Amino acid sequence: MRFTSEQRFDDDVIEREFTLDGIPGVLWTPASASASAPVPLILIGLPPLGLQKTYARVAGRARYYAAQYGFASATIELPGMGDRPRLPEVEQARADMRRVLQAGEPLTDEIVDALILPLVDQAVPEWQATMDVLLALPEIDGPVGYEGGVISIGVRLAVTDPRIKAAGLFAGSFIPAAIVEDAREVGIPLQVLLQWDDEGNDRQASLDLFDAFGSKEKTLHANTGGHTGVPQYELDAGARFFTRHLK
Amino acid sequence: MRFTSEQRFDDDVIEREFTLDGIPGVLWTPASASASAPVPLILIGLPPLGLQKTYARVAGRARYYAAQYGFASATIELPGMGDRPRLPEVEQARADMRRVLQAGEPLTDEIVDALILPLVDQAVPEWQATMDVLLALPEIDGPVGYEGGVISIGVRLAVTDPRIKAAGLFAGSFIPAAIVEDAREVGIPLQVLLQWDDEGNDRQASLDLFDAFGSKEKTLHANTGGHTGVPQYELDAGARFFTRHLK
Repeated sequence: MRFTSEQRFDDDVIEREFTLDGIPGVLWTPASASASAPVPLILIGLPPLGLQKTYARVAGRARYYAAQYGFASATIELPGMGDRPRLPEVEQARADMRRVLQAGEPLTDEIVDALILPLVDQAVPEWQATMDVLLALPEIDGPVGYEGGVISIGVRLAVTDPRIKAAGLFAGSFIPAAIVEDAREVGIPLQVLLQWDDEGNDRQASLDLFDAFGSKEKTLHANTGGHTGVPQYELDAGARFFTRHLK
Repeated sequence: MRFTSEQRFDDDVIEREFTLDGIPGVLWTPASASASAPVPLILIGLPPLGLQKTYARVAGRARYYAAQYGFASATIELPGMGDRPRLPEVEQARADMRRVLQAGEPLTDEIVDALILPLVDQAVPEWQATMDVLLALPEIDGPVGYEGGVISIGVRLAVTDPRIKAAGLFAGSFIPAAIVEDAREVGIPLQVLLQWDDEGNDRQASLDLFDAFGSKEKTLHANTGGHTGVPQYELDAGARFFTRHLK
């Protein structure tokens, strides 16, 4: 891992950009974090828009977590997004999806799988490599939480890597059947955000996925509003969820 | 209203029992509340078990709200419960319900209406009279929140009395159609608790009721567990909800 920039904000949060095997990422830490006072880590999964379009939103969350709750947070660019090499299978699936939806036809399982599973297969080991290097920093010691965007990545990561101790997931559409199967194996505490009036999201599919999770402690926070209308107060609810489980 | 006892706990919360037109109730206030520093009020609706069986749970919540967040809280006995005169129509409906459920038949709308609506019709004006006298106390000035048990009472109160500015409701079964109609007229911020594995509760009916609420800001908190298994952390989530809307 190579840090490519460092900036300290007046909320005493340090933001460092990095690259890891060619993947760009950002790390936020409270300035007070040190080898003698290391902090837990939250991985922030990006929504499928890429880092550039979501930077402001993600950085706002990460700086809040650092300044108000003493967490380190990190994000990495999604496979196929930004300057990263395109994923031809996913691009093809995206085109198929557009065509099918415009024709008013239902999405097939094949398209959903091709849209999501290559992302999952590539992103999960990338998150694990990111954890390896971030947890080796003296100012970060875990445990690790995951929160964010492409819910299928979070689900697979949660069943794959025991370092993930809690996850805050954002309900989205297009859940491959393999991921619903994974969900049954998830045992860590979960807090799932669902936008009740999400135009692009199948509400029932989200409720079914919530139902499928094997976790003994799982909480669904459903709020009025569309896909991008998550209320501001959920930021604090998320921070308190992670505080319960990572501190 | 007549206060019948007063006790000060070592968390600096004052608990006073009272009677109002023969209805027993309890008021909890932070000891620091005064005419020059009055506090908002939360009405705590009891579940249909009566005050005696639920006192410990309700008092725990009320004292937390007072000690940690500076709210006054009050509860009153439900119509027909404890030492209050029985409601023959409700008793009959309860017997009908038992008979029908034991026979494995579905509950009819008539039974649900007879079980719930007399409670609602009597409890709502009683809550309003309680508000009248509590808001006249120098140490309480509103606004008023409602939270609690028999969700139909909360819904009707929310559409009836404009002093209620926010409500934390506990999803329950047996919602009369008239209450679902009321729900469409509710406009205040809501936080609804749903126990995902509630044996005695129809999950879909609860989701439908949540969907029906007209409020622009409404949040559903669904948690794993049965009817009485509401997680401890929802206490704080409720307090923070009321803090956003009553302070």
